[in-house]
Order: sequence, then structure tokens, then C-alpha cells
Amino acid sequence: MTAPDVVVARLTEALGERVDTSDAARHAARADKSGHSSAGPALAVVNARSVADVQETLRIATATGTPVVTRGAGTGLAGAANTGPGEIALCVRAMDRILEIRPDDLLAVVEPGILNADLNDALAREGLWWAPDPASRSISTVGGNIATGAGGLLCAKYGVVRDAVLGLQVVLADGRLLSLGHRSVKGVTGYDLTSLMIGSEGTLGVVVQATLKLRRLVAGDVCTLTAVFADVRAAAAGSAAVTASGIQPAVMELMDAASLAAVHDLLGLDSPLAGAAQLTIQTDGPAAVAEAESISRVLRERGAAVVVSGDPAEGERLLGVRRAMHPAMERLGTTLIEDVSVPRSALPAMFDEIARIERAYGIVIPTVAHAGDGNLHPNFVFDGPDVPDTIWAAAAELFHAALRLGGTLTGEHGIGVLKRRWLGEELGDDQWELQRRIKQVFDPAGILNPGKVFTP
Amino acid sequence: MTAPDVVVARLTEALGERVDTSDAARHAARADKSGHSSAGPALAVVNARSVADVQETLRIATATGTPVVTRGAGTGLAGAANTGPGEIALCVRAMDRILEIRPDDLLAVVEPGILNADLNDALAREGLWWAPDPASRSISTVGGNIATGAGGLLCAKYGVVRDAVLGLQVVLADGRLLSLGHRSVKGVTGYDLTSLMIGSEGTLGVVVQATLKLRRLVAGDVCTLTAVFADVRAAAAGSAAVTASGIQPAVMELMDAASLAAVHDLLGLDSPLAGAAQLTIQTDGPAAVAEAESISRVLRERGAAVVVSGDPAEGERLLGVRRAMHPAMERLGTTLIEDVSVPRSALPAMFDEIARIERAYGIVIPTVAHAGDGNLHPNFVFDGPDVPDTIWAAAAELFHAALRLGGTLTGEHGIGVLKRRWLGEELGDDQWELQRRIKQVFDPAGILNPGKVFTP
Repeated sequence: MTAPDVVVARLTEALGERVDTSDAARHAARADKSGHSSAGPALAVVNARSVADVQETLRIATATGTPVVTRGAGTGLAGAANTGPGEIALCVRAMDRILEIRPDDLLAVVEPGILNADLNDALAREGLWWAPDPASRSISTVGGNIATGAGGLLCAKYGVVRDAVLGLQVVLADGRLLSLGHRSVKGVTGYDLTSLMIGSEGTLGVVVQATLKLRRLVAGDVCTLTAVFADVRAAAAGSAAVTASGIQPAVMELMDAASLAAVHDLLGLDSPLAGAAQLTIQTDGPAAVAEAESISRVLRERGAAVVVSGDPAEGERLLGVRRAMHPAMERLGTTLIEDVSVPRSALPAMFDEIARIERAYGIVIPTVAHAGDGNLHPNFVFDGPDVPDTIWAAAAELFHAALRLGGTLTGEHGIGVLKRRWLGEELGDDQWELQRRIKQVFDPAGILNPGKVFTP
Repeated sequence: MTAPDVVVARLTEALGERVDTSDAARHAARADKSGHSSAGPALAVVNARSVADVQETLRIATATGTPVVTRGAGTGLAGAANTGPGEIALCVRAMDRILEIRPDDLLAVVEPGILNADLNDALAREGLWWAPDPASRSISTVGGNIATGAGGLLCAKYGVVRDAVLGLQVVLADGRLLSLGHRSVKGVTGYDLTSLMIGSEGTLGVVVQATLKLRRLVAGDVCTLTAVFADVRAAAAGSAAVTASGIQPAVMELMDAASLAAVHDLLGLDSPLAGAAQLTIQTDGPAAVAEAESISRVLRERGAAVVVSGDPAEGERLLGVRRAMHPAMERLGTTLIEDVSVPRSALPAMFDEIARIERAYGIVIPTVAHAGDGNLHPNFVFDGPDVPDTIWAAAAELFHAALRLGGTLTGEHGIGVLKRRWLGEELGDDQWELQRRIKQVFDPAGILNPGKVFTP
């Protein structure tokens, strides 16, 4: 280990003003949007502007045995980019260029720091679209989307990040640059290291360029419908019935009674019926209207009060209720947003488990779900900066329930620091050990995001 | 190393009649459908009937230091399943059960030995479909499709194997069983080892169960059209124009003049016009008719003679011409089927390169292409069992041309033994070494398909 001031001196000598050692920057690097922070300020923040900057930072980090935490816009929800004492925060947010858009090959080549929404604005002008759409899309980077393997609202119909990346350029821990994957639709040369990097949360290398698989913008109408049910279990069963009916909506979001009440309060809307839960569904493409009608029939037969709108502005307003969930929760206290995912048919059973945990712990767990794909975001709300032990105990029961139902700890936020305690329970000891050894192949000195994903 | 007869004795003691040491079986395990064979008969063939059989075989292999080559139906085209002297052929073809079909969760759980077409017959009865459709689908196994990362005719619209697998059960070299991936639509817990296994050609572990992501059968019409062009470059440019127009056909196949002539001869059809090349295109879904009309316009404007049919039987007959390519080539001699893939816009340039190589070597290279996704199958035809050096030299030029155009050595057949010499050229030395080390993590003793993918 080299002394911290020597590391900073070497970084500054090599990278000049791109190294920020101000208190403000070093403190800002401690946290993401999970509410969790590292134990103290970062050693320094490197604002990389080029692949060469990233390589130089990693060469110095390797030479001095200094940990490196890669950061984009800091919008993660699992603490994976939180940088602590003695660690370099390597920020790639300023590497935000679009290098290429190829409508004829349906691909784009971009730097990692571009915001998802900014990329999609540029693509839309060419009639194109990168489908991954995390709720954070206006504030999160493409690199961060790749690092977490992000999902979003449209995944059941249009896929997740893993389905939308053809290739990556990655800088290894020692500063070497690798090109992974390809520009063609097909390609099976060697192992699929592109997929291995997706969702690796900064532990295997630093993504400095991505070749993205694009779609054409969907032509046709968009229909939005809301369906109000007497309780959350009925709403979950309704969403499962839509999937089972064979219709594939673009969006199918579920809000339980506590979520709905908090958002209505935030937005100044009339209070919802006590206990009522709501599905918000969008259909798109040439069959949008017919699909919305079929979905209405399925849900009305199950007792829902359904409203359908073909007006885009009204559709946005209806979806806006769902989008206001995060700010509504922030008003109530500190929030631990969970992210379990289960097979779609298990959604009603998962809501039963949440109700059981609420009763057992005497707490309310406002929950929204991407019901179309079985991904739930139960919110634990508490006072103060640290998650109380009792909340962690309740969260652990939630994880165990998801695993029992054939699900997973995390659908789209990642493991980071907040869920690493439970990683072994999902993977099993043998796979946990195998994954650790893969990490060592990429990063033998253990300087890339140490303590994240895997417990130290 | 344990003496071969001791290995066979241990296998037979543990697995009884499932161990086949007949000359016929040991010789049959030497080859796949590439035309290439191993140096001699396998040590023994184990016809596994259960996960436990696979585990027992691998435990004995590890204990005795004996190489294991996993085989399905033996339809590979790169020699990856060819088993040689001193090697156990571990055949999982008899593990062919469908364990679960879940229309509500759009997934199926299957054993690896089931044929792709048999699975899809069973799924079709429930209105479901596993989209990967290699041309070999009636004779190739799902496990083999996964091991090669297979593609097929429908990939531009409906994806490749990587897009259609949620999870795998894998037996490691030492006999331990791992569960990778998940049953939910989303899931980002730890590294994506499911994707790492896809296309790993038996070098990392033995797939014994797969959780597959299904689609609903596509409703609506199917339209088929053929478009005849004066030459292959015009046909390639035509296919690129279709993609650039924004219409996504389900199938878009290209046959050059030599392919078309050979198939017409085999099927007893009238000879095609000299030099003429053909696109065969299918559209499906609710907009199939309108899309076929738009495609016709695009191609007629480019000088093609276009015939459109909405009749399913006629459509099958038209596509049958493309499907007869492999038997037509087999009549001409021994065939080395190549598999380069390029970005779709580079298809005309790749045909220019093929023409250049034909002139330079004084040979004809009949070529078909999945033009919708940029994957070409140039066929080198020669006499006798072994690929002549001059053919390898021409093939090497083909690979280099594909790499120069931003493409890849292999779109869907894999590296096996036939392309391992060129693996390093595509990956680069650093990535080649990294991939070797990943192989060592899974298989430290190097008993899983040694000499395949990587040069020894």
C-alpha cells in the first residue's frame, strides 16, 4: 500500500485538473440514491474525459494498490458506487459522446457517461430507440444501466439491458483495454464476456464504450388504462390474468394501497378508496386499441373499475402517478427500496408474503411492482440515516420469500453493499466461490470496487 | 493418467449398460456434421439418462484425469463434439424430457437432449414457441443449440439462443451440480453465468437442464416473397435496403447464383437465369400483408423480379429451396461450411470479398446468407475427407475480410476445432488469455473438451 498523499500526487501529476480533491467532491462520492453512504470521503475524484484517462487512473491504482470505484451519475439504489476512505472515485459521467448512430445496422456506439434519456432524444430524431428504460432514465447513465443490468417498465415486451448490448470496450484493472462482443446481430466467437460485464457493478472492469442494439420507434397508437381493485391481491391476480390471456402490454405497473395513498397526497389528488390497489397499463403498436379493449374485458370480469384513454397526454398523466412513487416515499422518511423479482404467476403469493411480514413486524411496506414482469419494489420507510436492525430482519424475510417462490433478490438494482449478505443464499456456496474466482481472473489484486457484491 | 481399460472398468461398474464400448458407437462419436473427424474412436460412449449419470461420469473422469466430450445429436458444424482416442463421449441425447411448461410464466424447463423441433411441437399445442430456429431444428438438440449459441433464420426479428434462456443447471468438471440464472423475467444477482455457458461448446461444464424463455405463437398471416436479382451484389444491396427501410421481416434469406443452380438441379426445377441471385423473405404477424407489399416496392425499385404469396403451402415450397442448400452441396463433394457474420450494411462488401477470393483462388464458393442479420454461409467444396491447404488459405482470407468489415468468424456454428486457429485474431491476445483463465476456473484439470475452441 502506497501512502494516500503519494497516490493523489501521482494522479494529479498524470491527470492534472481532472483530479478533484475538494471536500465537496470527495463527500459527494460517498453516496448514491440508495440513502446509504460509505464510511467517509473518497481519497480523490477523477473526472475522466477519455479512455486514456481511465487507463492512466487504473495503471496508477494498480501500481499503488489503491481501490477504484467507478461512478456515473450516482443514481444507483444498492450502494455499488459509494466510494469510501482510501478509494479513488473514477467518474466517467463526462465521457458522454455519441460516437456513431447507424440506422441501417440498428446500432449506436456511445461513451458510458451519456444519460439514457439524452441518448434516446438523439435516437428519436432518427426514428430509433434504445429500449432499456429504468425509471431513472432521465438522470441515469447508459454505463450505469449496463453496470447494474438495469430493467425498467417495458421489459416484458422489450427486454432488459442484457438484450440490448452487442459489445463493450472495457479497461481492466491494470489499465489494458479490451474489445468484447461484436457489431453484427449474431456472433459466438469465444465466451460471451459482454454479458459477463453486464450487471457486474464495477467489479470486473471499467466500461468505456458500448455498442448498443437499437430498435425502430414503435409506430401506431398508445392506449393507457387504469384498473382499480378492492385490494392488492386482486390487482396482482388481475395482472397475472392479463399475462395468462396472451396479450403483451408494453407497461403494466401495480401500486398497492399505501403507495397510492402517498402519491395521491403528494400530487394533491382525491384520496383513493381505502385499501384499493391499481394497475396502470399501456399498450402500443398497431394493435394497441384492440389489446387495450381485451385487457379491459379481462380486468372488468375480475371486478376492476377500468378507465381507458387513447389520449397521449392523459396517458402520461396516468403514468405520472406511478412515477411519483419515489418522491412520495422520500416525504415519509428514509427509504430502503427493495427489488425482489418472482415468476409472474407468483405475484399474488408474493403480495401475501409482504402482508404477512407487515403483520409480523407491525410495519407498512408500500409496494409498487412492474407487474408485467414480476419485479416488486417494496419500500421500507424509517427515521434517521441508518437502516434499523428490525427493518433488515423484515427485508431478510422478504428475500427468503422471493427465493422460495422461485424468484431472486434483485431484479434490476443489483447487489452493491446493501444485499451482499444474502448473495450466497441465492447462488449457493459452490457458485458463490466460482464467481469469486472469476472476479480474481479479471482483478487479481482486488482493487476494483472491493467489498461490493461479495462480502469482504 | 489412469490406464484406459481401468477408466472403462470404473465407468462400467458405476453406470452399467449405459456405457457403450462397441466399435460402432466409439466410431460414431468421432464426427459431427462438419465433415471433420477426430483422429480415432472414442474411449467409450456414456449414454446418460439422468443428472446423476452425468455427475458420476464426471467424477470418474476427474479422478482418472480422462477428457470428456459432451454430445447431443452430433449435428454441429465446427467439430466441437468430435471425440477422439482416450476421450469419453458423454452423450445426453437420451435426457430428453420436458419437465415443465408454464404458459402463465412463458417458460419451459427441459432436459438438454430434446430436439428443438420436438420441443416446439409440444409447445405449439399450448400456443407457445421457443424462438431459436437453427436450420437443423428437426435434428439438433436444445442442449446443442445452447452449447453453440445457435442462431437460425428468424434471429433479426426474434433473437438468438442467448435471448431465450433464463437459467441452466450445469454439472462442473468435478461432478458438482450448479443452478445458474432464474425463472423470473428480470434477475441481476451476481455475474451472468447463464450467458457465459451459452456458446461455451462443452468447455466449461455440462448443461443438464435449461429454463427457456418462451413466446406466444405469432398470430396473423404469413406472407412469402421471392425477389430475383441480376447478381448477388444487387441482392445483398436489396436486403440491406429492406433493413434500412425500417421493415423487419421474420425471414430474409439470400442465395447466390451457384447455390441457386445447385439446389434447382437437386430439386429438378428449371435452371435459374445465369448469374441471378435470389432473396426469399417472410413477413408475419398482424401487419404481414402490408409489410410484404412495402418490401416488394423497395425491391422492385431496385430492379428485382418479385413474386408474393399469401398461401402457407406455397410459402413453405419457396423456403424449401433455401432449406435444400445443405443436401445440394453434399452432392458436389465434401463441404466446409463457413459462418462469418458482418453488420447488415456490410453485406454487399462481404460479397465483393467473396468474389475476390473466388478469383484469387480460381474456385467457386456457393454462398447463402441469413441476409436479415448479416450472417453468411460460404461453402467450400472439395474432394476427399480432408480440407486441402489451399481451401484453408481461402477460408483464412474470408475470416480476415469479415473481421475488417467489423464482423466475426462465426455467427452461429461456434469455433470447435475448425476455427480455433483464428480465435486469437478476433479476440486479441489479452482477451484470449483472459478467456483461457476463465476456462481454468471452471475446469482446472482441463478435462472438458480439451483442444476445442482454444488451441492446445
